[in-house]
Amino acid sequence: MAKEMKELTSREESYSQWYNDLVVKAGLAENSAVRGCMVIKPYGYAIWEKMQAELDRRFKETGHQNAYFPLFIPKSFFSKEASHVDGFAKECAVVTHYRLKNDPDGKGVIVDPDAKLEEELIVRPTSETIIWNTYKGWIQSYRDLPILCNQWANVVRWEMRTRLFLRTAEFLWQEGHTAHATAEEAMEETYKMVNIYADFAENVMSVPVIIGHKSENERFAGAVDTLSIEALMQDGKALQSGTSHFLGQNFAKAFDVQFQTKEGGMDYVWATSWGVSTRLMGALIMAHSDNNGLVLPPKLAPIQVVLIPIYKGEEQLAEMVSHLTVIADKLKALGVTVKIDDRDNVRSGFKFAEWELKGVPVRLAMGARDLANGTIEVARRDTLSKEVVVLDGIEHFINNLLTEIQQSIYIRALKFREEMTTKVDSYEEFKQVLEEKGGFLLAHWDGSPEVEEQIKNQTKATIRCIPLDAPEEEGFCIVSGRPSRRRVVFAKAY
Amino acid sequence: MAKEMKELTSREESYSQWYNDLVVKAGLAENSAVRGCMVIKPYGYAIWEKMQAELDRRFKETGHQNAYFPLFIPKSFFSKEASHVDGFAKECAVVTHYRLKNDPDGKGVIVDPDAKLEEELIVRPTSETIIWNTYKGWIQSYRDLPILCNQWANVVRWEMRTRLFLRTAEFLWQEGHTAHATAEEAMEETYKMVNIYADFAENVMSVPVIIGHKSENERFAGAVDTLSIEALMQDGKALQSGTSHFLGQNFAKAFDVQFQTKEGGMDYVWATSWGVSTRLMGALIMAHSDNNGLVLPPKLAPIQVVLIPIYKGEEQLAEMVSHLTVIADKLKALGVTVKIDDRDNVRSGFKFAEWELKGVPVRLAMGARDLANGTIEVARRDTLSKEVVVLDGIEHFINNLLTEIQQSIYIRALKFREEMTTKVDSYEEFKQVLEEKGGFLLAHWDGSPEVEEQIKNQTKATIRCIPLDAPEEEGFCIVSGRPSRRRVVFAKAY
Repeated sequence: MAKEMKELTSREESYSQWYNDLVVKAGLAENSAVRGCMVIKPYGYAIWEKMQAELDRRFKETGHQNAYFPLFIPKSFFSKEASHVDGFAKECAVVTHYRLKNDPDGKGVIVDPDAKLEEELIVRPTSETIIWNTYKGWIQSYRDLPILCNQWANVVRWEMRTRLFLRTAEFLWQEGHTAHATAEEAMEETYKMVNIYADFAENVMSVPVIIGHKSENERFAGAVDTLSIEALMQDGKALQSGTSHFLGQNFAKAFDVQFQTKEGGMDYVWATSWGVSTRLMGALIMAHSDNNGLVLPPKLAPIQVVLIPIYKGEEQLAEMVSHLTVIADKLKALGVTVKIDDRDNVRSGFKFAEWELKGVPVRLAMGARDLANGTIEVARRDTLSKEVVVLDGIEHFINNLLTEIQQSIYIRALKFREEMTTKVDSYEEFKQVLEEKGGFLLAHWDGSPEVEEQIKNQTKATIRCIPLDAPEEEGFCIVSGRPSRRRVVFAKAY
Repeated sequence: MAKEMKELTSREESYSQWYNDLVVKAGLAENSAVRGCMVIKPYGYAIWEKMQAELDRRFKETGHQNAYFPLFIPKSFFSKEASHVDGFAKECAVVTHYRLKNDPDGKGVIVDPDAKLEEELIVRPTSETIIWNTYKGWIQSYRDLPILCNQWANVVRWEMRTRLFLRTAEFLWQEGHTAHATAEEAMEETYKMVNIYADFAENVMSVPVIIGHKSENERFAGAVDTLSIEALMQDGKALQSGTSHFLGQNFAKAFDVQFQTKEGGMDYVWATSWGVSTRLMGALIMAHSDNNGLVLPPKLAPIQVVLIPIYKGEEQLAEMVSHLTVIADKLKALGVTVKIDDRDNVRSGFKFAEWELKGVPVRLAMGARDLANGTIEVARRDTLSKEVVVLDGIEHFINNLLTEIQQSIYIRALKFREEMTTKVDSYEEFKQVLEEKGGFLLAHWDGSPEVEEQIKNQTKATIRCIPLDAPEEEGFCIVSGRPSRRRVVFAKAY
């Protein structure tokens, strides 16, 4: 571990290498033998489980139910929604056979040519098609609506350039798919869910986000409107962290899902879909962590407090551990997750470095002097600051500290984003700020896909979103000079 | 629904059709557009989520951590463990291509022949191979052991004849994969996990099970020893409900996973794997349900108590609902899951039938007379019995009743199993009992795979297990007449 620590590349040296090092060395994930597919290791999965629990609770509180739909989608389903096929069916895993047989040459197994599927199956890249094909059987009348389903599942998109958590061929996610009687109700759902994502990002992940509409170019394939939350990473690049789509009647028409209205007529059903994925793990890591390792908000930390004895000899170790156990039990009683690191085969310095690397929010260390004085050393992971605190009532002190850290991490990320958000009023300024500083650029745009495309080709920056809370402001598109009514958010993005 | 109710085939008419009807009509699952793959509907998935939560807690309490491994396995991995390939790699979904393209004829999409994978990928039927290939990188020394990982995942086995929950091409499961320094420790883990499954089956599902060793013929492909839990369904057939495998050093040798022992030598790592799947849903349904629908044990019921107003006119409905809400709130405060069915567009009789179909353990109905008398009608789903109870302290009465129902369902299933378990001492008797009564047959067997095979071919009965608690008893194999030391359990099985 000490050796591994030294090998953690600094952010200044290479942000991208720092990220990869950190994901692997903190035990979050690693590449597998299958190109583009990752192994999510127990420590990383424990964080994902906490994310799942927080999101799932929010989904259920707003009336959603979980269900499960097939992994495979018949190839023909993708041709039914015209824009959807271009967006998703191209780079995908295709199942063509259903049997292997022994190689006649005696070595290993080969695909049995006699076991070819009549119609190829696609490993789901997203499930709108199979779900709307299913909903057709569930919906006859307005009384069957709304349907508010979510599924936690794996999906596969055959990405050529992959990065752990950020872009992998297989990833885990949740996808909500809802069906409504009116456009208004579906639109309300679309907004409700993007707001839940924003609440989760800000209050659980401590990551501030901008909520807004995607431009037409960046919209989900098959959507009428896409809302997203956009977060800013420490290197000044944006990361789209969740999306919520108003699908209009596109999928209902593609799969012929009509219902009898309250008034007795027939109409196509209105749809939404919305999702977040293990990509959130990437956002979490890149928003807060530093050159010593992960910085985790307490609400997502698998271990919130680590207790380390500073001792000489076995006897003192046992004594320290028994004192630390008393503190640990008091913390547990308050719902705090703790770990006593009583290993006797590594030094304290090694332990400190390891738990810093793993982002444990609070470290308690007790030495002989503390024991004599009735104190303990409290170290914060986020600020790397330390103080000596009296043991009396320590559990409440720590519990409050965890709340403070949760907020403090958020505020630091918010300040960073504010510093990294720049209003620009000309294309020259746009290019200069993008080059020298990065971050979010607020600029006027004429609303045309052509200008957006030109900016993207020339600078690699894209429109992250048209923020919901953007104030009206008369201005002129930085490229075309045509009038504009509000600024949109540009950035280079992951 | 009333119409659907009538269509629920009785168990006497056709057990198999009753099962299928019930799964579909109670809203648990349905067949999808993809052959052999099911859609798990919200009500069915809610039961599965409760199973997951109970199991996951037990896994974590015994030191296991969740992780996630890739969906795909390189074809060559399956050739590395000789018996494993025969057991699993034959009937499977094979991914051969990674791209579709527009059909030059203009209709839909076709597989792009230029996007053929160098090595085909198999959609995991079970993950021993990819996991042991991963563990190779995690294990160097005895200090890295044990590794106690579990994953919740989907798997695919290309079954030709599928039945909802019982046998589907894709199913959901958990698979534990552990690595140990000694055979003893791995064996201990194998027993520990099968005991956790038995505890879960009996105390959560209310399904009594026999724990035992599988015979060599029925062992998991790649295992040295397989333990299973075997449950008896109402039609006298057995259902294997969970397995725990001692894998010896087979996978460590196949993937060359060695470790430095405490003594300084090198040895191959010892392994276990263990799993239960959505098949448990089938066991749950077939163990308890009746011709009126599902019977759910309270610990797995998504709704434990349904409250139904018996009213005339809108005003009375509102009054009843307000009274029922008070009761519902008291129940919720005790952790009971409740639903008030205040629909005004269906009759009470329809509601009664619907919640019976869905297996809600307790139904409370309040009519005008109850309101006057300060009483409520309490109906048990398991016995279909009713009584009128005073409202004072009703929440404690119901809470105790739920505990009683949980036990009562178990005892009924246990009695049924006892009645359906027969000691037989000749092959003639064996065949007669199997034909006329079914159930578990306890018979002497000489331990040879040949006799087992003969019995299977002639009667379709298989050895379900060699029970852990089978008493020593001298006897003679019912087929070969050779001496035997204990009876084993035979049955026809799902």
